[in-house]
Amino acid sequence: MTQANTPLTYDQAGVNYDLIDPLKVAAQRAAAETGSNLAAYGFSEMSASRGESAYVADVGPFYLASIVECLGTKTLVADDMAKLTGKSYYDGIAQDTIAMAVNDLITVGATPLVVQAYWAAGGSDWFGDKVRAQALVAGWKKACDVCQVAWGGGETPALAGIVADGRVDLAASCTGIINPKTRLSVGDKLGVGDAIVLLASSGIHANGLSLARKLAERLPQGYLTDIGNGQTYGDALLAPTVLYSPVTEALAKEGIIPHYCANVTGHGWRKLLRHPKALTYRITALPEKTPVLAFMQRECQLDDHEAYGTLNMGAGFALYVAAEHAQRVVEVSQSVGIPALVAGRVESGPKRVIIEPLNVVYGAEELQLR
Amino acid sequence: MTQANTPLTYDQAGVNYDLIDPLKVAAQRAAAETGSNLAAYGFSEMSASRGESAYVADVGPFYLASIVECLGTKTLVADDMAKLTGKSYYDGIAQDTIAMAVNDLITVGATPLVVQAYWAAGGSDWFGDKVRAQALVAGWKKACDVCQVAWGGGETPALAGIVADGRVDLAASCTGIINPKTRLSVGDKLGVGDAIVLLASSGIHANGLSLARKLAERLPQGYLTDIGNGQTYGDALLAPTVLYSPVTEALAKEGIIPHYCANVTGHGWRKLLRHPKALTYRITALPEKTPVLAFMQRECQLDDHEAYGTLNMGAGFALYVAAEHAQRVVEVSQSVGIPALVAGRVESGPKRVIIEPLNVVYGAEELQLR
Repeated sequence: MTQANTPLTYDQAGVNYDLIDPLKVAAQRAAAETGSNLAAYGFSEMSASRGESAYVADVGPFYLASIVECLGTKTLVADDMAKLTGKSYYDGIAQDTIAMAVNDLITVGATPLVVQAYWAAGGSDWFGDKVRAQALVAGWKKACDVCQVAWGGGETPALAGIVADGRVDLAASCTGIINPKTRLSVGDKLGVGDAIVLLASSGIHANGLSLARKLAERLPQGYLTDIGNGQTYGDALLAPTVLYSPVTEALAKEGIIPHYCANVTGHGWRKLLRHPKALTYRITALPEKTPVLAFMQRECQLDDHEAYGTLNMGAGFALYVAAEHAQRVVEVSQSVGIPALVAGRVESGPKRVIIEPLNVVYGAEELQLR
Repeated sequence: MTQANTPLTYDQAGVNYDLIDPLKVAAQRAAAETGSNLAAYGFSEMSASRGESAYVADVGPFYLASIVECLGTKTLVADDMAKLTGKSYYDGIAQDTIAMAVNDLITVGATPLVVQAYWAAGGSDWFGDKVRAQALVAGWKKACDVCQVAWGGGETPALAGIVADGRVDLAASCTGIINPKTRLSVGDKLGVGDAIVLLASSGIHANGLSLARKLAERLPQGYLTDIGNGQTYGDALLAPTVLYSPVTEALAKEGIIPHYCANVTGHGWRKLLRHPKALTYRITALPEKTPVLAFMQRECQLDDHEAYGTLNMGAGFALYVAAEHAQRVVEVSQSVGIPALVAGRVESGPKRVIIEPLNVVYGAEELQLR
């Protein structure tokens, strides 16, 4: 256990990207070579989608987008909290899992259509807890209804020896279409003068949970610590991830096509640098930090550079839009229940994010995704 | 450890479906209710695909098919064998994983287009084994090339605490289209007089591995046991699953549309009963058992009813076709390197499979998938 009076950073919390990244690069290269296989059917890939959050293929009348996404380790928090409170949190966990897939799929301009469930348990026993199983099913259905997608089916394997006993590995795949094709958003229209609209998050979402769990270990009351608003740390962490597809679909109905989108997940606000173009992203207004993220920043003693570079800090999704649409984008988001603000603008200059109110800058070298 | 002189059945080998099935049924019901969400886009689901191996939605110019599939526990055999031989088997394991998804997707008449990789490891360390990582990437790419699909991308999470240390949970999602729509095969054309063509398997494929591992535990030489043809049990088990999409694509080019297809996976030949119609499937000729399945049947002391009801016994995929096309289907399969035979026919009568040469019958009650 680390000392309570020392800072706790994400690097201490577990995942070593130096080991994963060489495999990722090799996989990306091999994958890129397979794009030409689509020519056998008269189709082609949108190579600009390589490196983006979802893969896009041109199948003629429209583009096809697809993705598979893992929830991560948020279930470990849910399992610990279930022991402490007797409640099941798997309805929210289901929404989190679908959000991981849907919120990535929509970044390229896709309308999500079909979701598949991947629920791999450590043994048949896992599925025998009826309350938890029912919560997972009900939450999954509800999230599909919110996103207006069909739940196509899925897999419920029991993987003793691979998945840990009593645990479940949750993921979702999602398929959608970009229709009309003009809705494609892979950043070619992104440019100087665009406004940056940030959509509110509900809390930590599903990234940064390793750090959150480390912090729980050193809090005397653990997940039951009051974060200052009467809510426990565990309950606040388990707020389900916001589903953003109602916003992008509502925008499409108004004819507003974002120039680019970034799902603010791992790497926090460094994700604003996602597109390879050399542009400066100047943030001049900040969304409210959610209470649980403010609590984590304080308790982990993270400076703003570390906090905003790791966690979403209140901004779950970024839309880069023509400046004249910015205010309308905010209104549309709010009309579907998601607070939003015009947070900044795109400028010419070196590739970096400048968070003016905090004096924080992230350079291009601080986000290496390709 | 069980005694070597007693039979070893699948029921002893681990998975308790009584615990999983109530959740599955609840999930299927909830999922079915979401199909109407597609109406928001002017689309609809093919409800006949509910209960089939892949989900199908009507998106206008063609049908969209999608799926996510888990490899299962075959990696545990690969990991044990790697310790014994120093070799990596993950190129074949990659093919197995893709086969699980592609071979299911094609049953509904779909052309697979895009595969996504889901490689969830027990920790970052897993990805640090360069030989294994390279084999996984190379095998994944090769299988995509064989199936002429684009490898869109995927997820490589490190899930310490969820996936067991040193292990990996492998899955694949696949998206395809049914184009022209007349290629849809969900069984409406299945009927009396159809021929049943069986395509050869390469071995155990990726179902029945729990039983295979149990057997290894009680063999004095374990995975290094010679199965009678100079091959070790472990090497034979790890023969990669046959990819069947080259057959269905070649058939489509000849204008041959199967009336129905069944991927012979879990439940072995009971899968021939997959479609809900009340029909009798009479098998009059058997494919060669692969050596490893003959070995397992002998060593586990499985009678034919148990063996054919659990393992593929040499038949990895079944095509139900118009009788006049049967011989041509065999030739087309052989032309892409996959042995095949006209094994039987569809007759009127109660829902059952009759394997005449073995005096084995499976009734409808022996396969409950819906």
